[in-house]
Amino acid sequence: MTEQFWLWYPGDFELYHRMEQDFSRVERGYGWPAFWKSDGFRNRVVFRRQYTLERNTEFRVYSKAVGFVLAGEKKYPFGQTIRCPKGRVQISIHAARIDAFPSVYVEGDVIRSDRGWMAEDYAQPPLPAGYSPYFIRPDQDPARWEYNEKLYHPVKTERVDDGVLYEFETELTAVLRAEAPQEQLAGMRIYCGESRDEALDKEHCYYSWAPDLETGETPRCAVRFAFIPGEEVELAAIHQFVDIPVRAAFYCDDPLLNQIWTVAAHTFRLCTGIFFLDGIKRDKWIWSGDAYQSLFVNQYLLADPGVERRTLLALRGNDPMTGHINTIMDYSLLWLLGVKEHFDTYGDRDFLDLVWPKAASLLEFCRARTDSSGFLTAEEKDWVFIDWADLDKDGPFAPEQALLCACWGAAADLAETLGLDGEVYRTRREALAARIDECYWDGELGAYVDSFTSGRRHVSRQTNLLAVRFGIADAGKRALILKNVIDNPAVPPITTPYFQFFELDVLADSGRLEQVMERLRSYWGGMLERGAVTFWEEFDPAVTGTAQYDMYGDRFGKSLCHAWAASPIYLLGRYFTGLRREGTGFVIEPRLEYFKTLDCTFPVDGKGGIVRLAWDSERITAQTNRAGGSLLSGGTRYELMPNTPFATTWADG
Amino acid sequence: MTEQFWLWYPGDFELYHRMEQDFSRVERGYGWPAFWKSDGFRNRVVFRRQYTLERNTEFRVYSKAVGFVLAGEKKYPFGQTIRCPKGRVQISIHAARIDAFPSVYVEGDVIRSDRGWMAEDYAQPPLPAGYSPYFIRPDQDPARWEYNEKLYHPVKTERVDDGVLYEFETELTAVLRAEAPQEQLAGMRIYCGESRDEALDKEHCYYSWAPDLETGETPRCAVRFAFIPGEEVELAAIHQFVDIPVRAAFYCDDPLLNQIWTVAAHTFRLCTGIFFLDGIKRDKWIWSGDAYQSLFVNQYLLADPGVERRTLLALRGNDPMTGHINTIMDYSLLWLLGVKEHFDTYGDRDFLDLVWPKAASLLEFCRARTDSSGFLTAEEKDWVFIDWADLDKDGPFAPEQALLCACWGAAADLAETLGLDGEVYRTRREALAARIDECYWDGELGAYVDSFTSGRRHVSRQTNLLAVRFGIADAGKRALILKNVIDNPAVPPITTPYFQFFELDVLADSGRLEQVMERLRSYWGGMLERGAVTFWEEFDPAVTGTAQYDMYGDRFGKSLCHAWAASPIYLLGRYFTGLRREGTGFVIEPRLEYFKTLDCTFPVDGKGGIVRLAWDSERITAQTNRAGGSLLSGGTRYELMPNTPFATTWADG
Repeated sequence: MTEQFWLWYPGDFELYHRMEQDFSRVERGYGWPAFWKSDGFRNRVVFRRQYTLERNTEFRVYSKAVGFVLAGEKKYPFGQTIRCPKGRVQISIHAARIDAFPSVYVEGDVIRSDRGWMAEDYAQPPLPAGYSPYFIRPDQDPARWEYNEKLYHPVKTERVDDGVLYEFETELTAVLRAEAPQEQLAGMRIYCGESRDEALDKEHCYYSWAPDLETGETPRCAVRFAFIPGEEVELAAIHQFVDIPVRAAFYCDDPLLNQIWTVAAHTFRLCTGIFFLDGIKRDKWIWSGDAYQSLFVNQYLLADPGVERRTLLALRGNDPMTGHINTIMDYSLLWLLGVKEHFDTYGDRDFLDLVWPKAASLLEFCRARTDSSGFLTAEEKDWVFIDWADLDKDGPFAPEQALLCACWGAAADLAETLGLDGEVYRTRREALAARIDECYWDGELGAYVDSFTSGRRHVSRQTNLLAVRFGIADAGKRALILKNVIDNPAVPPITTPYFQFFELDVLADSGRLEQVMERLRSYWGGMLERGAVTFWEEFDPAVTGTAQYDMYGDRFGKSLCHAWAASPIYLLGRYFTGLRREGTGFVIEPRLEYFKTLDCTFPVDGKGGIVRLAWDSERITAQTNRAGGSLLSGGTRYELMPNTPFATTWADG
Repeated sequence: MTEQFWLWYPGDFELYHRMEQDFSRVERGYGWPAFWKSDGFRNRVVFRRQYTLERNTEFRVYSKAVGFVLAGEKKYPFGQTIRCPKGRVQISIHAARIDAFPSVYVEGDVIRSDRGWMAEDYAQPPLPAGYSPYFIRPDQDPARWEYNEKLYHPVKTERVDDGVLYEFETELTAVLRAEAPQEQLAGMRIYCGESRDEALDKEHCYYSWAPDLETGETPRCAVRFAFIPGEEVELAAIHQFVDIPVRAAFYCDDPLLNQIWTVAAHTFRLCTGIFFLDGIKRDKWIWSGDAYQSLFVNQYLLADPGVERRTLLALRGNDPMTGHINTIMDYSLLWLLGVKEHFDTYGDRDFLDLVWPKAASLLEFCRARTDSSGFLTAEEKDWVFIDWADLDKDGPFAPEQALLCACWGAAADLAETLGLDGEVYRTRREALAARIDECYWDGELGAYVDSFTSGRRHVSRQTNLLAVRFGIADAGKRALILKNVIDNPAVPPITTPYFQFFELDVLADSGRLEQVMERLRSYWGGMLERGAVTFWEEFDPAVTGTAQYDMYGDRFGKSLCHAWAASPIYLLGRYFTGLRREGTGFVIEPRLEYFKTLDCTFPVDGKGGIVRLAWDSERITAQTNRAGGSLLSGGTRYELMPNTPFATTWADG
């Protein structure tokens, strides 16, 4: 089939669907739209392209917008066949729409909406038009996402009190459909739950719905259990999802690790659709900090660059930037680091061309808020987050500076990739790194302090983890931090799964794999012991019963399917299987001492490249369909030839 | 009734309806959305207000947005009755909507959506919420304008060729409704025309419609004649309009002048609704230059400040400004002069508070495009318009500088009204005026030239009229200009009605009332001789037949109902009746030598203030319902006491 897409102004698709997503949260009957600035899409755009036709041709433009097609000197309505004689012709498609972003589809042999069209918004210079592989047919409307659907029936029904509890095989994002006469539907209320307790608590459960009288359907929501007062009815769940194929597999001799992998994968896929979401029950919002962590899981599970592009564009919004992403200072910085991570992973140059001006203006926005030391400071409405913990946020806050420092370095690399001057950013990186060491490093404590203005010399894991992870701390300081902070029980432990990602990443990167493995088994294994079918926003082994679902002072406030809980995928892939990028290729350096047997597959690029590694306690076999891969085993590097099985014995390096 | 409005983020109502308007143009079957940047409304806003309740109260919030009400610490869905105990309470209404701007309505005794709510958009400091007297009931949606309707039946039907021509009493903006069985509707096509010729020309008429099969209705469009092939059907026109009351009347002894007044008033009312439009058939767009002239007619006919506010907000859009209004450099400047004119007329301080930041940023946008002399220069995509005429636009173009100079003066006045520093603007005004005289005044020719860079010394009426009208030319230069330019037949005449406004205004202001009266009779009287029921975009007495409807190379391209053709209202009111503002009051100084008898009423403010003046060839009687008015007659000033008839004889001053 010839390549033919719906076209729009680049980024507008993401801004529109971002709003659909960020405005979709419902809590106990009221809508709870995300509380940050929601940048809108453009309403009036024009698409242009010049052709030199070798023969007569015809084409037709489809659109739900108001507008016309200008072919040469003549105007035509949408939907009409337009004939062009051979020779040079300029095509302009003018489109305006208020309720959604304008988009157009051009059907034809030669003149058609493939790549190569430019879009204008009457404010900026022309940009390559935006498109998506999900919108390729003229009968579609890119403002209506078409989810894939899978039908589920309850695996168990149970009479409880005055009604029936329906349990599905696993947690879903589904429309529930009750088959019942209209009279019965009229009085029906369906109480949903991620847990049995939640569905049975008619007062406190997060979602409850009166089904539509015509269809018997509820809105799409997170559901594993449903309780319906009254007699049993036929209830089905229509799971709605974006079908992003899994590119990875993981089987080892340890059933617990295998189950952790499976549940993490299910959790991540539920939270990954049009965008990376934090959770499927709550918040259903696109948070930059959560998305940053999802990038790493995505690399080892789906390797889908599309969802990353959509998420990064949605988060960033339009220029000029008027506030931090999600209102959070650190989330602006993590967005930029996410852009770098995305480019390093997928080498996505078209996207970098599009997003670089937004990255550069984000950095300018931040730079306007730096003090004379180059430290990023907060304005009145800025949220200085980093982590839910007792941190000393007086004055410029250390971890923000570590992130900003990393941003300057990332910007230098990205600018140079684009053939621009990176030196201006690199100079800022070096200067800021030096000032961080001067101001925040406490020689006596052998650690970075959170604040140098308060005089409290407060040492936190958060500050020191970021300084290590983003390369602010040199090797000497890194060793001191491991000793004085990470291994020091007097420094308060990390309590949030959000920051656990950074801690486990640093521990693993520092060779503390034993500690990481122990955490996988206890924390994620602990949730499995409680019967988790998806991983939770937070888990405290000491809390049991209904109290374990409580969060933010809300009895069922905790999300039981939360993206950041999927990080075992990344930890197992990156550190235990030992797969990492190397230039444009990859190297795999498995730590087989942790496995008796292993058979795993991981993506190595965003285009279907994979590597499979198997270990039967004696022999390693590896195979890939891509060039540029190597296996590191026992200190020896073996080049992997594409589509050529390779085998060796393994000696623990 | 207690005051209760729908509320929205200020300006968003106007931006939304501006798009509805600017995207509504249809030409021979295709949509033709306006070709400039269409700034969107905000999608996520919050409304806040604090109350100190003297007793328990309850309220209810209505909205088509997604969101919730936060009353104190508790959240409530829209539509639910919320009870608040006496004492202090903070109410926040969170609202998000994608397809239109979010709006909310608060019904209650104490807590209700009257004036006093603040709106936030998560980017700027809070602003007083926007509202409109047209949206005051909870069952409304401010995104759907509710037009008033008046039913018209054809005053004449006539069999022509293969069908029937239907003629209505006058030109309308109407939905046509054909009463016929569905089979007949299915094959029906309705051809519309502002003229008989247009409706009968099935190929070239601007609008033709297939009526809706269910209702028999066409879209709303400009129509006076309709042609339907086939047998005669019941055809009705549902005229849809915004009911803005006329505050003026004009009757004199000359039937021609009376008819000019009547037709001009009808023309203006058709073009004035949610916004000032240029014309009702074409473009149906909101043009700043056209709107500027409409301000002057409005003062003397409707005195409706609301349509001015809506138009000015719609034109200006959001900050930051990225291009000139309607893409036209002079239209940005005329917008600012319009803000000044609006404030001077209505003393509308709330509006000035809202619009001043937009005025200041518009001026900054322009100033960034000035050269070292302070002359405004054009960038690549800027349209330097001024007039359709042979002008010398080389280098900085003189009339743009005259407008900019006037803008600096206007900004100084407005800033000082707001208690801000006006001196910075006034200094720029003086400096620019001096540079204009240095660079553009040609002492030998005794006139301003269009360009000082081309060396062509081209003298135009346009440049010199603006220099006079906006006070750049001092009294000496003004006299020279009248002699060397205005009275000089070698200088090409004004050919567009658009610029005729400026020419007649300057002539009248220079005491050349005889010339103005002659033009009223010949130009507007000439259209009446052709049977005009509304005044045209352009009129050339030398052209007859179907050719008289031709414009822009389009057989029926000319608009036959065009706002700028309504300027006789202003000319008769301002100069012949002699009503003008004076401080916060008014003075009326009639030129009764042009009338045998006269009985006219004009608005003197935007709140129902009027003055009535009658003249029976001997006695003048005057009456007003407002304080601060005077009659000037025979060099004597008579103070008019409110609601107290005053009479005197008249002696020609």
